Amino acid sequence: MFSYLKRLLIGRPLKSTELGEQKISKTKALAILSSDALSSVAYGPEQILIVLISVGVAAFWYSIPIAVGVLILLVALILSYRQVIFAYPHGGGAYVVSKENLGMYPGLIAGGSLLVDYILTVAVSVSAGTDAITSAFPALHAHTVGIAVLFVILITILNLRGVTESASILAYPVYLFVLALFILIGAGIYQIAAGSVPPDLHAPIGTPIAGISLFLLLRAFASGSSALTGVEAISNAIPNFKDPAPNNAAKTLLAMGALLALLFSGIVYLAYYYGVAPKEEVTVLSQIAERTFGRNFMYFFIQGTTALILILAANTGYSAFPLLAVNLAKDKFIPRMFTIRGDRLGYSNGIIFLGVLSILLIIGFKGQTEHLIPLYAVGVFIPFTLAQTGMILKWVRQKPRGWQPKLMINTVGALISLVVSLMFFLTKFAQVWSVLVFLPLIILLFHRIKKHYDAVGDQLRITECAETLPIEGNVFILPVAGVTRVVENSLKYVKSLSPDQIIAVYVPFEREEEAIFEEKWGKWQPDVRLVTLHSPYRSIINPLSKFIDTVQRRAGESNYHVTVVIPQFIPKKAWHNILHNQSSLLIRAYLLRRRDVVVTTVPYHLTK
Amino acid sequence: MFSYLKRLLIGRPLKSTELGEQKISKTKALAILSSDALSSVAYGPEQILIVLISVGVAAFWYSIPIAVGVLILLVALILSYRQVIFAYPHGGGAYVVSKENLGMYPGLIAGGSLLVDYILTVAVSVSAGTDAITSAFPALHAHTVGIAVLFVILITILNLRGVTESASILAYPVYLFVLALFILIGAGIYQIAAGSVPPDLHAPIGTPIAGISLFLLLRAFASGSSALTGVEAISNAIPNFKDPAPNNAAKTLLAMGALLALLFSGIVYLAYYYGVAPKEEVTVLSQIAERTFGRNFMYFFIQGTTALILILAANTGYSAFPLLAVNLAKDKFIPRMFTIRGDRLGYSNGIIFLGVLSILLIIGFKGQTEHLIPLYAVGVFIPFTLAQTGMILKWVRQKPRGWQPKLMINTVGALISLVVSLMFFLTKFAQVWSVLVFLPLIILLFHRIKKHYDAVGDQLRITECAETLPIEGNVFILPVAGVTRVVENSLKYVKSLSPDQIIAVYVPFEREEEAIFEEKWGKWQPDVRLVTLHSPYRSIINPLSKFIDTVQRRAGESNYHVTVVIPQFIPKKAWHNILHNQSSLLIRAYLLRRRDVVVTTVPYHLTK
Repeated sequence: MFSYLKRLLIGRPLKSTELGEQKISKTKALAILSSDALSSVAYGPEQILIVLISVGVAAFWYSIPIAVGVLILLVALILSYRQVIFAYPHGGGAYVVSKENLGMYPGLIAGGSLLVDYILTVAVSVSAGTDAITSAFPALHAHTVGIAVLFVILITILNLRGVTESASILAYPVYLFVLALFILIGAGIYQIAAGSVPPDLHAPIGTPIAGISLFLLLRAFASGSSALTGVEAISNAIPNFKDPAPNNAAKTLLAMGALLALLFSGIVYLAYYYGVAPKEEVTVLSQIAERTFGRNFMYFFIQGTTALILILAANTGYSAFPLLAVNLAKDKFIPRMFTIRGDRLGYSNGIIFLGVLSILLIIGFKGQTEHLIPLYAVGVFIPFTLAQTGMILKWVRQKPRGWQPKLMINTVGALISLVVSLMFFLTKFAQVWSVLVFLPLIILLFHRIKKHYDAVGDQLRITECAETLPIEGNVFILPVAGVTRVVENSLKYVKSLSPDQIIAVYVPFEREEEAIFEEKWGKWQPDVRLVTLHSPYRSIINPLSKFIDTVQRRAGESNYHVTVVIPQFIPKKAWHNILHNQSSLLIRAYLLRRRDVVVTTVPYHLTK
Repeated sequence: MFSYLKRLLIGRPLKSTELGEQKISKTKALAILSSDALSSVAYGPEQILIVLISVGVAAFWYSIPIAVGVLILLVALILSYRQVIFAYPHGGGAYVVSKENLGMYPGLIAGGSLLVDYILTVAVSVSAGTDAITSAFPALHAHTVGIAVLFVILITILNLRGVTESASILAYPVYLFVLALFILIGAGIYQIAAGSVPPDLHAPIGTPIAGISLFLLLRAFASGSSALTGVEAISNAIPNFKDPAPNNAAKTLLAMGALLALLFSGIVYLAYYYGVAPKEEVTVLSQIAERTFGRNFMYFFIQGTTALILILAANTGYSAFPLLAVNLAKDKFIPRMFTIRGDRLGYSNGIIFLGVLSILLIIGFKGQTEHLIPLYAVGVFIPFTLAQTGMILKWVRQKPRGWQPKLMINTVGALISLVVSLMFFLTKFAQVWSVLVFLPLIILLFHRIKKHYDAVGDQLRITECAETLPIEGNVFILPVAGVTRVVENSLKYVKSLSPDQIIAVYVPFEREEEAIFEEKWGKWQPDVRLVTLHSPYRSIINPLSKFIDTVQRRAGESNYHVTVVIPQFIPKKAWHNILHNQSSLLIRAYLLRRRDVVVTTVPYHLTK
């Protein structure tokens, strides 16, 4: 049943050799790798307005200078990451760059924030995509959480199937989204130029506003910089590009930066000119589209492609998270299971973990994106800062030809990223404080896990010097519940091993049973020694394990080994198991964990 | 942690010998065994009025003749059960009486309905008790379900501790309730007699009512007879009485019948005279108490004792259900686990099962008692009918001295019970149809379970004729994951058993690993044969079990036995287990279930 359902959902298993690395062209790469960054324009501008509205609608003109600041930040980041691409042509995620240049702990800080961040990518993108849908169809607004969860489940299943195969299909929505937004921005600017938009919808730039403060403006800037999340994606994926990979990746990065800059500026400008105010139930982008086109085909085209690209952006999390997890698991910082490839060759454990956690986040935050965005942005800018700082150290240490301008670019990138990170903590502490709690906890956990794996490795390694005494003989203990074929079967097996001693053990709960059973046993197996252990508290495990201790102490003196043989009958159908007390399972688990005895299970298969 | 919490909640374990059967006196027995029956007067009269109000308030006078009918039914039942007491002095539940006299299926019908019924007893009594509390404190009305669930959990814990020890404490609330109701009825009748109650609150008896029908009256009668649930309790518990047990039990039964009759008549009469109408949020009993005393101390005393006795009535379910389950489990109709005594000598599995199911019922029905009462009553009257019919057959077959009057009494009892049962199906089919679905399903399940146990018993029994070939030799298969101390440890153990053949099996996922490992192994253990099974689909179980099949086929020819030895390292702390892929657990479970091989686990305990 379960395996049939699994086949149906994720397809037949693939051979390891079917893992072919497909090289992708620049146009395809631009589409696949920039969905996260480009989709950010769907919520980035809105974040600026949400801060400004606390002063008043007239303050909206500040969104223009703030947007200029964000664009400067974008240029710095693009140039910095261009250098990461050439320096780490095999893919330089913030984790690798920080670990190599700054050491283990900075690497873990970068890795830890990115892990959390990819979960937030999925939660934020899918929630924002759902918002785009519910803005278009307000009747669905009550079901936001359900729809978002459904999307996450869908994306998880697609990724378990192995979404890379169908990557080319994923390219269309991205280009459609870019096309849709260009049409929107073009039409909007045309309408403004043609004078068909009343010019009094907004306060002119420079209008003095009472109550505006530097703090508020920094806050709005920090919020707006959330539109830059996702620009690091290309630098992680260089090996997937066609040769010469670094050059192609760098060109793609520049193209993405240009597109992002144009779309971001256009949306901010239209929002300002139309005087759009952020609303609970309708996104800013939806309002702009409605003002420009009315609720016609173009409106639904824009909302549709927005929803699609946002949900695709979640997919970025699904490609990045499992790969980062593999790197961390190979370095022994997280459980080894994240390195296992599933039936379809994807890292299924990472994919499932990501899906489950983002669903929990969506449910926990009731699908309200705005509460997650600051956390998300901080989680991006901390690794940004660390990676750029790592690059600074790299240039200073290695001093390759022409390193001075490179150093300068990364220094500017590092400083700006650091300033943005600090701004988040200064201006939005109430929303991002949890980073300061969880990040140290995560790093502590990483550290503990690493310590454990190292200790296990030490203990399992075979060293020349360690000599152990040979086993001189074997004692077999056979707990029996009655005179049955199951016991007969186990006895026959134990006897065939011709051990030095066999002891059958019976644990009666009542004194009367004791004599009766001893007599019965004596008639049936006169040559096998029987020990009865009366258990007044009706526990089988306690007297049995005490008895094992005694036998072991005696056996240890002469270096004999103790084996407990458990006779177990296996019912024909699995549901029959609930009809039988599974004491053998409990005994086995307890003995293996608590005592140094070998546990042998002799099955007796029932046929009806 | 868990075991500490267990100690705290249910106390230290008791020895089997501490199980002393406490004989109880008539006064104590009356209190303990009649809480279910007496508490029914808290909701029985209300059920009559709920039916009559559909015609109009004026129809309430019909409650008087209906109550007379219920009293006649009560007399018949008391007399019938008096005979059961003398005929089955060791406790004659409906299950035993029906099974012995009518055969297996009628016995199972009685047993099945009683099992379900005890669950309903708990759900209905606790819900009604909660109603009494929320009637007194309307602010709590929104939390009905939560309060009821809390009470069930509390009673479950008390019963797991072993409530019988403190049985004498349980006697007080019952007598307090009887006292409270006598005061209420006395004060009410005094007020009526003194003329301080306006006589125009009710329509006089005999007022013609438009729209009344025989169907409706029968329906009201059936509803009212729910006040008689619980009268069978004494006949199940005869062995607990002081000698002469049957005589004492019979006297207690009569006393209970008399009390029940008085309380029931009093409540019905006052409700009629005051013209009380059933309300959603306030019980009829609460309304009567409020009219008689106002909201003073007496009112809260009555509500408090009512709540207490109702919750104690749930306790009746907790004493009856596990005992019936033990009887059914001994006859192999339900899983054997119900016969196991827990740490405190109670049948913990039955107690927990009852608690969980009644919580599910309460949550499922949102704590609304009235929807459960018809189901509950039907579940009582079906076994009533079967038990009385069984008694009829017993008299006819055995013909003891003076059997004719006994036969007549049980015949009347059986007929009336049958009529009431049928009435429920005729007049409240919408509420009780589920009995017709679930009862056959339950009996089918009982039957399947019995069949399984019988089949297992047959297969386990040792018969003289069955001769099996002796095992001639042993082959050991040792799956290895690397050259480690865990493997070394297991190899040492296997070698000490000096088997005929040892085969180490390695399952590489990549072709390259194969040669590397073979070389490494050859250097380390040149005398142990290594087989590598390349697994292109990255599964360990599939190639391993195919290999075992091959070995087994060859070994089977010469009657060799195959043992799979699993090297397993046991981490120091339990949480470490999530850091290691538990393939050994999966392999063991799979092999034991699917293949006829012995599985031996050799633990290697890590020390840090």
